[in-house]
Amino acid sequence: MGGDNAPGVILDGTELARERYPGLRYVLFGDGPALEAGLRGRQKLKNCCSIVHAESVVDGAMKPSQALRKGRTSSMGLAIQAISDGTANVAVSAGNTGALMALSKFILRTMPGIDRPALVTLLPTRRGESAMLDLGANVECSSENLVQFAVMGAAYARVVLGVSRPKVALLNIGTEELKGNEEVKRAAEELRAADLRFEFVGFAEGNDLGKGGADVYVTDGFTGNVALKTMEGTSMLIADLFRRAFRNSPLSMLGYLMARGALRTLRAHLDPNTHNGGMFVGLNGLVVKSHGGANAAGIASAIGVAKDLAEGDLNGKIAEDMAQYVIQRPAASAEVLIP
Amino acid sequence: MGGDNAPGVILDGTELARERYPGLRYVLFGDGPALEAGLRGRQKLKNCCSIVHAESVVDGAMKPSQALRKGRTSSMGLAIQAISDGTANVAVSAGNTGALMALSKFILRTMPGIDRPALVTLLPTRRGESAMLDLGANVECSSENLVQFAVMGAAYARVVLGVSRPKVALLNIGTEELKGNEEVKRAAEELRAADLRFEFVGFAEGNDLGKGGADVYVTDGFTGNVALKTMEGTSMLIADLFRRAFRNSPLSMLGYLMARGALRTLRAHLDPNTHNGGMFVGLNGLVVKSHGGANAAGIASAIGVAKDLAEGDLNGKIAEDMAQYVIQRPAASAEVLIP
Repeated sequence: MGGDNAPGVILDGTELARERYPGLRYVLFGDGPALEAGLRGRQKLKNCCSIVHAESVVDGAMKPSQALRKGRTSSMGLAIQAISDGTANVAVSAGNTGALMALSKFILRTMPGIDRPALVTLLPTRRGESAMLDLGANVECSSENLVQFAVMGAAYARVVLGVSRPKVALLNIGTEELKGNEEVKRAAEELRAADLRFEFVGFAEGNDLGKGGADVYVTDGFTGNVALKTMEGTSMLIADLFRRAFRNSPLSMLGYLMARGALRTLRAHLDPNTHNGGMFVGLNGLVVKSHGGANAAGIASAIGVAKDLAEGDLNGKIAEDMAQYVIQRPAASAEVLIP
Repeated sequence: MGGDNAPGVILDGTELARERYPGLRYVLFGDGPALEAGLRGRQKLKNCCSIVHAESVVDGAMKPSQALRKGRTSSMGLAIQAISDGTANVAVSAGNTGALMALSKFILRTMPGIDRPALVTLLPTRRGESAMLDLGANVECSSENLVQFAVMGAAYARVVLGVSRPKVALLNIGTEELKGNEEVKRAAEELRAADLRFEFVGFAEGNDLGKGGADVYVTDGFTGNVALKTMEGTSMLIADLFRRAFRNSPLSMLGYLMARGALRTLRAHLDPNTHNGGMFVGLNGLVVKSHGGANAAGIASAIGVAKDLAEGDLNGKIAEDMAQYVIQRPAASAEVLIP
């Protein structure tokens, strides 16, 4: 029921995912009659769906605290509960991010060894895609949090991007000796000292994000959120200037029409719908967050990521690397072991 | 002597500035014979220039601490000293940012009432240009630092953008109740309570930077540096995808050629050379920082900003607003008054 065009676009996306990924089964949480009406005439989809009616819905304006009080029996709350109960392997939601995060944390709880879950997503780069985290779940982060984000981000990249030994970079700034705050510097020391299933490639700066030199970019939630939204805003700014520039003369307008195919390729690469499938990593269960404005292709992308995460045993990979880290760096990880 | 193509491009830029802004006089600091050779055959430029020979140069790799030890008699050190001595009104450098910042702070010292100087620059937006600070001078910032950045940024916007009552926004993230860290929240309270010569318009997110809804975006140096470089990196990513997309088919290639005029307009708007003229605000003297890779037009832009700053009495405007702030909010500004 979440996002801008639910449940219609969610069902369309699920239909698309059914074609792309045969063999999956779907449990649809929401307004029973509306979902049944939506499945009418779609026999193939109907055959792999079951419906769980929910009395209420978490709307886009609901605050996390309200969601915790009132949202437990909402479609969102019941879907997350199904992950906790083991009746489903992974939840996908296009709904209210803050509410989804609060309910997921409350119902699923944080994984052993992880202090704080993080929000991770895929970014378009010159080379394809990279992962970035945290994107706003944690406004202030310790070096230990950043190390855990690196472990979680690397596991995510192994599963979702299919990279066997991901390159992990820490986002930092480049003014010589002033380079970075204490948390970033200490996290880098730890990551250099540990021998885990990823390669720590050191620091990256904001202008490296689009290059894709690393598979995973790690940062605190404040910086990550600003960086991600700055990428989106800059793309929109350029698109806007682009339209205006082309309107300037009939010749450029004609050029624009002739180049439309190329522009479509460009747009597809930058389209958030092709990089849909952010998630909260670090919980005892998998919850994928789709963009609220995703179209059917975007929903199908999120379902594809969800499928990869469940099949690739993301949390098992995180647990393995965290256990390794604790063995290798007992002092640094003490605060995680003894909360 | 600073930047990628000094002193040639600096002289070309100064020549351009001479045409654009008649009546300015220039003191050129650097390798005397090289500068004299560069002025040969440029009689008009020569007439408004004097040369001060410096024995040494701060190179791009020099660390701020080395610059402080060895750079005092370099061309950069002497140029800043000239501002302190009052023999010049404003310094422009395309050299090493960290060294320029360290030498400027050491020689000019921080203005009364300002705890820490900040690095400010102009950003391209849909509406034209906005200012953003801090861009990396201060990795960790208190709420009081952010308030001072707002005052300094607003004064910069009044002088450089010519806005009589600038709109000032604080960069923040948008995950509902988790919104922002303590420093950002407290700075917002202070800015709401104070009545200064700008309008505090509240929080902005990363995707607002390109919209230009505010004239000034205030943030800590870590986030600001990452955001600015993310804008640059995203522009480069899009430009790269763009070139690749157009190479895909002969038709799009032809379209590209026809639309070249429009693309030039777009590129000019995003070109850092048209938004050149960052500076360190908050010092007892004006030091403008040009991009190291600036072309002649970029150097001329930086000189134009320098001219506006000197003529518009930037520091007088900052001092007035800080004095007002101290009267209006004595408790909040106590730490500034009694260091």
